[in-house]
Amino acid sequence: MGSDVAILAGDLALVLADDLFASSGFKDDAFERGLGAYSRMRQEVIAGQFLDVTNAARSEIDESEAARVAMLKSGRYSIVEPVLIGASLGGAADEMLDGLERFAAPLGEAFQLRDDLIGTFGDPAATGKSVESDIRQGKKHVLFAKALAKLEDSDRAHLLKLWGEPEIDERGVAAVRKLIESSGARAACEELIARLLTQSLEELTQLDVPEDARAGLADLARRAVERVA
Amino acid sequence: MGSDVAILAGDLALVLADDLFASSGFKDDAFERGLGAYSRMRQEVIAGQFLDVTNAARSEIDESEAARVAMLKSGRYSIVEPVLIGASLGGAADEMLDGLERFAAPLGEAFQLRDDLIGTFGDPAATGKSVESDIRQGKKHVLFAKALAKLEDSDRAHLLKLWGEPEIDERGVAAVRKLIESSGARAACEELIARLLTQSLEELTQLDVPEDARAGLADLARRAVERVA
Repeated sequence: MGSDVAILAGDLALVLADDLFASSGFKDDAFERGLGAYSRMRQEVIAGQFLDVTNAARSEIDESEAARVAMLKSGRYSIVEPVLIGASLGGAADEMLDGLERFAAPLGEAFQLRDDLIGTFGDPAATGKSVESDIRQGKKHVLFAKALAKLEDSDRAHLLKLWGEPEIDERGVAAVRKLIESSGARAACEELIARLLTQSLEELTQLDVPEDARAGLADLARRAVERVA
Repeated sequence: MGSDVAILAGDLALVLADDLFASSGFKDDAFERGLGAYSRMRQEVIAGQFLDVTNAARSEIDESEAARVAMLKSGRYSIVEPVLIGASLGGAADEMLDGLERFAAPLGEAFQLRDDLIGTFGDPAATGKSVESDIRQGKKHVLFAKALAKLEDSDRAHLLKLWGEPEIDERGVAAVRKLIESSGARAACEELIARLLTQSLEELTQLDVPEDARAGLADLARRAVERVA
């Protein structure tokens, strides 16, 4: 019964979110365009969650596939579409929307990479995210895919054995961290995040917006990918 | 993984239904009013399903509570709100909507009563509905509530024991049917359906609609509550 009620609670949240959107007071073209982005976002996140669930049942994954799932289930949902929804409701023209998407897309990717790192190396007391959940569930995210691509022989087999192990203990988690660290995947993710942030901030300089808006967006960009662990 | 994917498929269906509604081409006041009924319907059916799930865990229920759940999860979802959505999109005025609601509400109640009867007495080959599912799940519907109120002593205890028994066999189902039949609850439900249909058709005579529309609605009313078992 508990899971039945949880499903209904999720459905109700989805329905009430729609009602809030519909009763937001926005009208006409701005509303239509905002609704389009909102609707697209919902389909993307469902597709991304579907791939995330089905990929968890696979043992391996390559980085490009992991990156595609991350973009759908997290990057576009958490960053890109919210930016486009807000801008659409605010009446932004197509050119502005395109520029904002170029600004937001690298951030969306970096946001999920940060989440991968927190899920494996973060301090749960600081992050609120259980360290083991990604590992226990065998999430096939980019950090894992990078490590898998870099490790060889017994190290690779060891990571594959521990990743997705429901009963993993503290020693197992420590071993996973060491393998990912030694593979260079952690450092590669940090470098990629820094590069994506730079790319995003460069796109921001191209946007035709007032300086205080640009400063606000730059601040949001840094906060979206900053270290919390 | 199967149930995770099923939940996502349900979410996707909900989202795509919204998109169809939003892209239906209706505009302005008619669209807003139709959307209001659509949105109310979704909240009602979730509330009704929630009560249905939680009531299944109770052993007893009184008829008024069972009727309220039936109206939320089925009557308004299957009959009343679809009528009001269609009429709203067609530009019906408040007075017409009120009249249509008086026409549709008794039908919604009768529709669910018919469903209760089919779930207990119907032929699955004809109805497509498993006879045992309501019994196995211990659905606390109006037919069950009526039988429980009418039975006494050992018969009452017997029905309570069988209703919601997950492992019930054919003999058990036959015993449930006999108990409900002998209690008079089956006949009482048939009488109530007939009375509700009459009430609905009387309301229909009061509606200011063309005669062919009235005939069409009367036909739909009869089909909604007709015997298929």
